[in-house]
This record gives sequence, structure tokens and C-alpha cells, in this order.
Amino acid sequence: MSQTNTPIEQLAARAREASVLVAGLTTDTKNAVLLDLADRIESRAADIFAANTKDMDAARASGVPTPKLRRLELTADSVAQLAAGVRQVASLDDPVGQTTRAYDVPSGLHVEKVRTPLGVIAMIYEARPGVTIDAFALCFKAGNACILKGGREANESNQLLATIAKDALRAHAAPEDAITAMTSSDRDELRRMLTLSEDINLVIPRGGEALIRFVHEHSRIPTIQHFQGVCHIYVDKTADLDRAMDIVATAKTSAPATCNAAECVLIHEDISGAWTPRLAERLARDGVELRGDEQVCALAPGATPATDDDWGREYLDLILAARVVASLDDAIAHIERYSSDHTEAILTRDQATADEFCRRVRSSCVLVNASTRFNDGFQLGLGAEIGISTSKIHAYGPMGLEGLTIERFVVRGSGQTR
Amino acid sequence: MSQTNTPIEQLAARAREASVLVAGLTTDTKNAVLLDLADRIESRAADIFAANTKDMDAARASGVPTPKLRRLELTADSVAQLAAGVRQVASLDDPVGQTTRAYDVPSGLHVEKVRTPLGVIAMIYEARPGVTIDAFALCFKAGNACILKGGREANESNQLLATIAKDALRAHAAPEDAITAMTSSDRDELRRMLTLSEDINLVIPRGGEALIRFVHEHSRIPTIQHFQGVCHIYVDKTADLDRAMDIVATAKTSAPATCNAAECVLIHEDISGAWTPRLAERLARDGVELRGDEQVCALAPGATPATDDDWGREYLDLILAARVVASLDDAIAHIERYSSDHTEAILTRDQATADEFCRRVRSSCVLVNASTRFNDGFQLGLGAEIGISTSKIHAYGPMGLEGLTIERFVVRGSGQTR
Repeated sequence: MSQTNTPIEQLAARAREASVLVAGLTTDTKNAVLLDLADRIESRAADIFAANTKDMDAARASGVPTPKLRRLELTADSVAQLAAGVRQVASLDDPVGQTTRAYDVPSGLHVEKVRTPLGVIAMIYEARPGVTIDAFALCFKAGNACILKGGREANESNQLLATIAKDALRAHAAPEDAITAMTSSDRDELRRMLTLSEDINLVIPRGGEALIRFVHEHSRIPTIQHFQGVCHIYVDKTADLDRAMDIVATAKTSAPATCNAAECVLIHEDISGAWTPRLAERLARDGVELRGDEQVCALAPGATPATDDDWGREYLDLILAARVVASLDDAIAHIERYSSDHTEAILTRDQATADEFCRRVRSSCVLVNASTRFNDGFQLGLGAEIGISTSKIHAYGPMGLEGLTIERFVVRGSGQTR
Repeated sequence: MSQTNTPIEQLAARAREASVLVAGLTTDTKNAVLLDLADRIESRAADIFAANTKDMDAARASGVPTPKLRRLELTADSVAQLAAGVRQVASLDDPVGQTTRAYDVPSGLHVEKVRTPLGVIAMIYEARPGVTIDAFALCFKAGNACILKGGREANESNQLLATIAKDALRAHAAPEDAITAMTSSDRDELRRMLTLSEDINLVIPRGGEALIRFVHEHSRIPTIQHFQGVCHIYVDKTADLDRAMDIVATAKTSAPATCNAAECVLIHEDISGAWTPRLAERLARDGVELRGDEQVCALAPGATPATDDDWGREYLDLILAARVVASLDDAIAHIERYSSDHTEAILTRDQATADEFCRRVRSSCVLVNASTRFNDGFQLGLGAEIGISTSKIHAYGPMGLEGLTIERFVVRGSGQTR
């Protein structure tokens, strides 16, 4: 079933043809394919483990480091989660055909805005083989065909998972080219793929920043990505200081390697004297290195002095930068300079301050009194997530004022940690 | 006031700084700047004509062809229209800060989607100097800074218009770098501009296909464009044949060089015998060359036999391609193969046929019983238009199923011609 020898140009043309058919499938057919796929993943778990074991053995033999091995491995638990995830996507509302707005214009025309699939989506990712199934399920439910280019290390797992998806498609007379798993290959093939703008509508790179930069550099196709998640939390002088402690500490420790983990805390000077030493103590207990500006270091002797490199830095590790600021303006100025447009949060009990922060900070997700880690499609009620975009791109059809803006998420909480 | 000697890298960095301030302006301030600009355009009409005369003289001396000269020229009427257009933009609702959706999620978070400016928008266009004012007004009202690169021929006009806009900005303490009019320059500077993805959020090329292809090829910044508008009209067997005649003929003749003009008519075979000869007669009277397939030519002896090159061709001229089709399926198959995703229309009195056409044809705008020429921001109630996108790109923040689709326009009419 491997598609090793077919050039990407042909695979993309076939995906384009399949996408026309997928766009026309009924919701019932799409859900039937997805539920069948979930069953097949469970019933073929042994085969999936066998393929994954081949990948794991080869990766170990070639000295792949442990964190990457961990991402590569499929366990009984992760296979069960894969199937559950596909069933979850089947249960979500079908966005295709939804009318998002309807109105009449003076000429008597009745105008509707209607959701439609994008066409062919190429996803480029690294070790995790589960993405093969997650990405297919989401793209397919939204009426798209997908071309999946996973990491070389996961090739056996990815090919088998794609074959199982093709089996499910065929069983319901849906086009099997709705999924294409490219066999791992050199950068040259990837580079060629990134020029196929006639056949591929959107590219989503997910993985390390080097991969994303490569795709950004070479793509002739619109790409959606975030390079980094340098997330800030501003602790205002009116913040609930106990809640603030839990929110800040867990926003770093609960999943330090994720894009929505906090990387920098900005502390209002009126509360820094009381709060900074407590923060330092809590972080030390949680195994987090604190890198502070002069004022933070004066208040927390255990802190490492921050250098210029620490501002705007995505640690992806148990390290947190901290700076004392004199005002909301100073906090916003720091964020404007160092933000990656991903996620920023304010902790405050003052409504006007919260409103001003939300209005002036224009990151893709701004939160009040909740952890940055809530910027996640599932947590924000999207049902699932294919990625997080910091590209402000959009629009199909005539563009007026609205077409010159984009929608971002503004989220208000009551102290939620995560 | 010319910005001739400042490298684009510096201009873009200044535009980025200005964009932060523009995004924070109140609606009242933005409207005051626009109304003031409209007044200034009127009161400085003599200066504008003088600058435009320099451009026209130089263009004539260098043998610029007449159609381009016509686009370059600013008349008393076009200056009045410029001012009126700016006042019209001032009267439109401000999209910035609008909440487009609000809901709660189980963790207790209250989530809003809120409109926000894009940042810095670069617009690349050819001869028409009026675009300098139109584009600034739209970008500014939507809270963005803009970098405008017009054609070399219009340089004197563009620089003066930008200076007048800067005067209006300064008079209201708004940042004058909200508008930057690049002096005409070589392709090398344009190529460098297209790499400045840290400072520029969106590129909109408007003009001939060669310009758009150049931008598409070299841009590292998301671009929104359409390469061509190859618009089809399908005349169903149940169409009102008299209305169909008017719609098809005027969709070609009312503005043959625009992107929403009809280029190809698909005629159901059940009515082709009666309707095609009448169409041929009407088009001949209107000075339109008809290029038909074999069946059309048999029914309309004056028609030119179409070659393979005529399908999917954007004539931008008084030429219309025509083909007889056996069914709705055949019409849709032709459109799937040759469409530029811009605009397609169906003329029919059968509701089910109209619905199926709307569902299956996924161009950016699909119309029932109305001319393709209604795909225009103003006609579709957007108040104004900065361009028409056939790029299906979008999304900022977490993307779920909805993020894997795009909204298009579906428009139902009752025989509207344009």
C-alpha cells in the first residue's frame, strides 16, 4: 500500500480530484467513515503495535534521543485515544454548508455566507504518528482531502494508519485519495510539494521551529503556523495574589514544552515586594528556574539574572522569566515588543484594566484571570484542534472592511489554572 | 515629502510602529481623519491636477498606450469621486472590536471572538492613482497601516495624494506613517519588500496577471489575490429565456475588462436550439464575438469555432465563449475543470437545480438568476471593496473544524442584470 514511488506531483493531482468528491459527501457518509475507522484502529491494534515496533527499533538503533522516542511510541493507551479522538470528531457538527450570515441588499439580491471546504490540505509534522489519524479525521470531517508528511522515523506506523483509513474510506465508497501519507523523503520532494499551489490549498507545518521556518521559506502555498509561543502573564496590582500564584506556576509546570505554556511573568511594582519572594519559593519547590530582572533578583536571591536574550524567549522547559513593571502601559509595551502574537493573560480584579488589556493586546488569544494554557481548541470549545495560527490570513471572495481585519479570541475566566 | 531615499526595510519598520497606534485609535478619530482628508482632496484639486498632468505628460512622451493613459488620468469627476469615496468609508461601521461570537465553555471561561486589525497591509497596483486614496481609507478605517506601491507612471499623483493623507493624519494627531507611498522603483526593492514578513502582515497585488504572478512567486508574506476571473453562466433548461438573454449579454458588455464579467456561457441542450440563435443575434448587435463549440456553431453560423484555448480563458474583451451541455452535471464538470474559483452563475426557474448548483460549485461567489458582475464588495453590501480573493486563506488562533473551511458568498436574485 506504500506510495513510495509515486511522485508528489501525481499524488497532489489525485488528492485534488478526491477533494471534489469529499466536499460533496453527506455528513452521514463522513461520520460512517470515521466511526468505521475508529473500529478498525481498535481491531487492528496488534498490527499497529507491530509497525510501531519496527519504527521504534530502527529509531533506537540510529540513536534517536529519548524525548523523540517517547513521541514516536504508540501504546495501548494512545491507540485507544486515537480511536476515541476519531469518534469525538464524528460527533462534532459538520461545518460544511453552514450559513454564517444572510442579508438582503438594495438590488433585491439575497446574500448568504456559506461555509465550504478548503480543498487539499498538506500537513507536515515530525515524530508523532497519532497526528496521521487526528489530522485526517479533522480534514475529512471538514470536507477536505489531506496530504500528510510525517517524520521519517514514524514511516511504518504512518503508512499502516493511512492504509487503515483508506480501508475505511473504500468500505463506504468514499475516495481513498482523501488521505495520502507521503513516505518519508528528502527535503527536495518537500520543496517541490510546497510549489504545487494549483493542487494544494493550505499547508500546516507542525513541529520544531526549524521545520516551520523551512516551510515558510519555501512555500508558494498559503501556510498557517506559529513559529513560537512566547506567552506572557501580567500580574496586575489588583490581582488575587493566591490565585495568581497557582495560575502562573501551573501555566509553566503543567506542560512546559507546549506552545501555550507561560514563558514570562510581568509583575506590577506595587505588589512585587510581597508577591515575588513567594513566587520564587513556589517555583523553586516546583523545580522551575526563575530568571529575573534586577528588581526580581533583589527580591528573590535564588533567581538567575536575566540577560537580554531572556525576553521574548520560548524556553519549552522549566524556566520562567520575570520582570517588574511600573504600570499596565509598561506591561503592554513589553508584550508589544516581545510577543509572538500567540497568547497573553492578565490577572486582575479591576474590570477597566482587564478591558484595556484585552483591547490593546492583539495576540491570537488574550485571557483574563486564567492560564495561558487554555489557548487550545478543545478548551475553547472548538471540539478539536488542528493547530494554532499566528498568521493573520483569511478571506475568500470580495473583501471590504471586515476583510481587512481578523477575529481573535478574548477569554474571561475566574482564576482557572491548567 | 517624497520618501524616495528611505530603504523599504526602514519604511516597513515605521509602518509597523504606526500600525500599533492606528489599531488603538477611536472610531471618532478615524472618521475625523477621513472626513478631513475628503475636504483636503477637494480643496487641493488644482494641485492634484497639476501633479497628474506631469504624470500624463511623461506617460504620453514615453508612448504609454491609450487605455493605460485613461486609467492614469484624474479628472474633476474622478477627484470628486475620490472625496465621496472617502466620506463613504467614514460612514461605514467600524469593524474593529466587534464581537462576532460569544459563548461559555464547561471550565467556566467566557469566550469571545473579537475583530482586530491585521497590522500592516502592502498594496501593489498599477496605473490608477485613485487606488492610493481608496486603499488608504479602507485600511485605515479597519485600523491598519498601509504601504502603497503604485505604478511608476503615477508617481507624482500618488506622492501628492499620500502627502495630503499625511496632512490629514497629522492634523488629528494620528501617526503619519499610517500611509507610506513608495516611490516607483525597480523590481529588486519590491522583491525585498515581499520578504519583510516580520513587519508586513498581508500583501494585496492588484493589476495584470503578470504582476500578480510576480508577487505570488516572490512573497514570503501571505498574499490575497485572484489571478483571473474566468466567470461562467449556466443557462438551465428551465431558465427564463428573455431574462437570461439580458443577463448574459450585459454580463459581458457592461464592463468587459473587469474580473467579474462573464467569459463563458454554458447552454442546456433542451433550450439551445431556440436560444442560441437569438443569443448570437444579440451579441452580434452588441459587438461581441461569439466563440462556440460545434453545436453552438451549427446553430449560430456567425460564431467563430472555439479551440481548446477558449475554455477557461479570461478574454477581458468583447468575446464570449459558448458551449452546449447535456445536463447540470456536465455544466458543473466544465466549471470544475475551467473555473478560476472567482464567480459562477446559474439561470434557472427550478429551485432544486439552483440549490444543487450552489452546493456543488464552490467558487468564491455563486449566483442564482443574477449577473456575475454582482460579485463586487459594494453590490454585495460590504460598503466598499479592497479586492476579491480566490485564495482560501484565513485563521488566527486555535483552529478546529471551522478553521478547516472558509466562507464563500451564495447570492440569489430574480434576474438582476448589471
